[in-house]
Amino acid sequence: MSPTTPKTIAIIAGAGPGTGAAIARRFARGYPVVLLARSQASLDPLVRDIQKNNGSALAFPTDVTDISSMNRAVADTKAQLGKDVRVAAAIFNMASKFTRKGFLDSTPEEYLGSLQATVNGAYNFSQAVLPLMLGSGSNEQSHPPALIFTGATAALKGGNGLGSFAMSKFAVRAMAQSLAREFGPKGIHVAHAIVDGIIDTEQTKGFHEEMPGSKISPDQIAEAYWYLHTQTKTSFTHELDLRPYCESW
Amino acid sequence: MSPTTPKTIAIIAGAGPGTGAAIARRFARGYPVVLLARSQASLDPLVRDIQKNNGSALAFPTDVTDISSMNRAVADTKAQLGKDVRVAAAIFNMASKFTRKGFLDSTPEEYLGSLQATVNGAYNFSQAVLPLMLGSGSNEQSHPPALIFTGATAALKGGNGLGSFAMSKFAVRAMAQSLAREFGPKGIHVAHAIVDGIIDTEQTKGFHEEMPGSKISPDQIAEAYWYLHTQTKTSFTHELDLRPYCESW
Amino acid sequence: MSPTTPKTIAIIAGAGPGTGAAIARRFARGYPVVLLARSQASLDPLVRDIQKNNGSALAFPTDVTDISSMNRAVADTKAQLGKDVRVAAAIFNMASKFTRKGFLDSTPEEYLGSLQATVNGAYNFSQAVLPLMLGSGSNEQSHPPALIFTGATAALKGGNGLGSFAMSKFAVRAMAQSLAREFGPKGIHVAHAIVDGIIDTEQTKGFHEEMPGSKISPDQIAEAYWYLHTQTKTSFTHELDLRPYCESW
Amino acid sequence: MSPTTPKTIAIIAGAGPGTGAAIARRFARGYPVVLLARSQASLDPLVRDIQKNNGSALAFPTDVTDISSMNRAVADTKAQLGKDVRVAAAIFNMASKFTRKGFLDSTPEEYLGSLQATVNGAYNFSQAVLPLMLGSGSNEQSHPPALIFTGATAALKGGNGLGSFAMSKFAVRAMAQSLAREFGPKGIHVAHAIVDGIIDTEQTKGFHEEMPGSKISPDQIAEAYWYLHTQTKTSFTHELDLRPYCESW
Repeated sequence: MSPTTPKTIAIIAGAGPGTGAAIARRFARGYPVVLLARSQASLDPLVRDIQKNNGSALAFPTDVTDISSMNRAVADTKAQLGKDVRVAAAIFNMASKFTRKGFLDSTPEEYLGSLQATVNGAYNFSQAVLPLMLGSGSNEQSHPPALIFTGATAALKGGNGLGSFAMSKFAVRAMAQSLAREFGPKGIHVAHAIVDGIIDTEQTKGFHEEMPGSKISPDQIAEAYWYLHTQTKTSFTHELDLRPYCESW
Repeated sequence: MSPTTPKTIAIIAGAGPGTGAAIARRFARGYPVVLLARSQASLDPLVRDIQKNNGSALAFPTDVTDISSMNRAVADTKAQLGKDVRVAAAIFNMASKFTRKGFLDSTPEEYLGSLQATVNGAYNFSQAVLPLMLGSGSNEQSHPPALIFTGATAALKGGNGLGSFAMSKFAVRAMAQSLAREFGPKGIHVAHAIVDGIIDTEQTKGFHEEMPGSKISPDQIAEAYWYLHTQTKTSFTHELDLRPYCESW
Repeated sequence: MSPTTPKTIAIIAGAGPGTGAAIARRFARGYPVVLLARSQASLDPLVRDIQKNNGSALAFPTDVTDISSMNRAVADTKAQLGKDVRVAAAIFNMASKFTRKGFLDSTPEEYLGSLQATVNGAYNFSQAVLPLMLGSGSNEQSHPPALIFTGATAALKGGNGLGSFAMSKFAVRAMAQSLAREFGPKGIHVAHAIVDGIIDTEQTKGFHEEMPGSKISPDQIAEAYWYLHTQTKTSFTHELDLRPYCESW
Repeated sequence: MSPTTPKTIAIIAGAGPGTGAAIARRFARGYPVVLLARSQASLDPLVRDIQKNNGSALAFPTDVTDISSMNRAVADTKAQLGKDVRVAAAIFNMASKFTRKGFLDSTPEEYLGSLQATVNGAYNFSQAVLPLMLGSGSNEQSHPPALIFTGATAALKGGNGLGSFAMSKFAVRAMAQSLAREFGPKGIHVAHAIVDGIIDTEQTKGFHEEMPGSKISPDQIAEAYWYLHTQTKTSFTHELDLRPYCESW
């Protein structure tokens, strides 16, 4: 790439271990990736892993729910990659804690905390990346810039004891739809994935071990997102679901 | 009612002019009503109107988005009607301002303000009324206690430029679903109405005047809520839509 | 009613015992009712019951899935009530058998039979009643004419082993939506009810007896339909669900 | 492939020009393809085109709505490729005529014809291919067998004047969901695509020419189906939408 060509990156919020790391590795095969997660410790091995596979990765410990932290990450990115850096793909994969307590047994912080964090994060991240996506993709060789949100079944259904989680997922789905309708005509592909099932990560080790393939592979989520990114503007998918073959739904 | 029988009331959040007032008048035909709205000025004529029609109404200027204001309203209610006051029907009809600005043109306060206010209000109100509903309705003569949320088309679809509004409506719908699944088995009827169209109020005077009946009648919303309240526990409706006969949808 | 005033009736397809009978009794409190069901035997006691309660009822054994049988019922109705008879409310409540066999274990007749019967019935019935509804309701005193379809959870979800049933319920829902959008602007209220749970009838005796109120009351379905019929044209509900308080959903 | 290894094919119903042809060409890069369409004339150039690109294609003029015609196609396939032929991917892409006439202006044949043809076709095709898919995919190198249905916006919404079309699309969606839930646990991936917009074919030449990219590319539909086929069983997508970037929805 010549020094005058702007760098084009993928940026992942929630690039911690598990799904985020898989997405990071997948997009690193196509772009330099910028990785955001709360803890440096979880980012370091991922950066090394990507570099070992000839990818390029920058990691910034960032709290995307905090606007100043998010802005700092963008400033740091520009400082390293150039002020005219472009975003080809932006993935919002941030997890947030939620309570399963009964409604009357939960404090406002417990019950509304997940919503507040998730929505602030989705908002800050979208505000930061969309200006770096607009006007991209004019190059017919490249894929249209994509902004992808990780959702869940709770984006469609408010389960008993899951109001805290569902509120955050419903709200992000509303934002994703609204952004798709606003920025689609401007050439930006906004998509939302309904991840319906247990994801196969370190944390879920031990679940369903007797039934191979019954947990969603993080690599497959990453493939889905990469596929979404490769869709041409004639045929954008806004929403798809992902679930194990044996999941009850 | 003997002095030893606990008073059973209907309570309406967002009892301002228009839909809230219509709901208040309808439920005042069945119960003493407690009316919450920001401004005393909008409550006064409504209280007089209800009293003129032999109803009983208390009004407390209340900001339900503020937990201490909401708690004060409950304390005032108990002070006037007894510590053992019961809630037969609770209607969350609070409106909140939202922006129609483009996503990148809006401030966080503008874009997320509607969500925050609406969700805080719905949360505070539900926390306040549900304990006064639990255990009601054991009397087979009475209707099961009902908690009803006013929703909108934006609870189902995040329109272009309507992300701010849609996020708040999606989130409240998630909460309503979750509460329905948690409190239904406890005998409380939680419902959500999709109001799809322009409501016929002072503020919408002049719209569609050429087409009689093309705006939703606040009295009809009130009738719908009253009907929902009268459903027995064998047959709860969780969600219904309401739209003018000529609305495009 | 003077001899020159056209008779205005309610007509129910699937007026057999259970839900159909409850609907018939409810609408007989407002209109002379015309009852259609396959067997005369199931209609006779219902007619007597309605007459005993000072209602007026005509019953025609009819196979609504057969166009000539449906047409004969309309001709018989006109012969008895006048050529200019008007329909205020038309309820499509026909049940059809469906298979729960595995897809590959079912014959085409088994798997597609429910769809064919249900759709033919819904089509024939709608074709017969809509011309007798158009132009009604011009009288501001009367309720807008309503065409109401009984649906089920299977109208929203194709369950494992329930494809046969779901296809018929999905298809009727499509028809109901399409009719609502075509005939709403002409003043006809088309509605669709999602009945989600076991209905409390002779056939379901013995189910859930240990849990009072856990089966949907046919009378409550009838009340819901009557309420829908009373909505003014400013505020039509197209769809509502009905489920027991303790139903898992 | 040794003579003793069963042949593994992709089979496409509705392999006429446009979307069907694009799907055929895409899957021919991975499998020998069997092409079904009503007219031999539309199949011939497609077969030649695939062969020119080093693919392998068999074409059988078939009316999949007719069970004997569908069975003949399977028999012909087995005669040519072996009795133990396996199906890796089966695409139901059959179009059917539907009326846009008003409900009361349409004949039963017009209004219900699309439903009957589509549902018979989907049923016959699924009955024919599923037995050839079961037990496939045990080989970990290969993709799980996939049965994919082409749907439309009308699968989600019954528009005014589109009841005929919507009934057929709703019903197929019900079948697809039900098959997904029945055959997913058996390792078969059943998916449904919501194609939302005008497809860029010979027939739609002239539409929206002023707006490049505003019609859905048949090749992109084909890519979406191929992507669905490549999903591992840990992460099946049941439903996705496809729409042009500028489509209003």
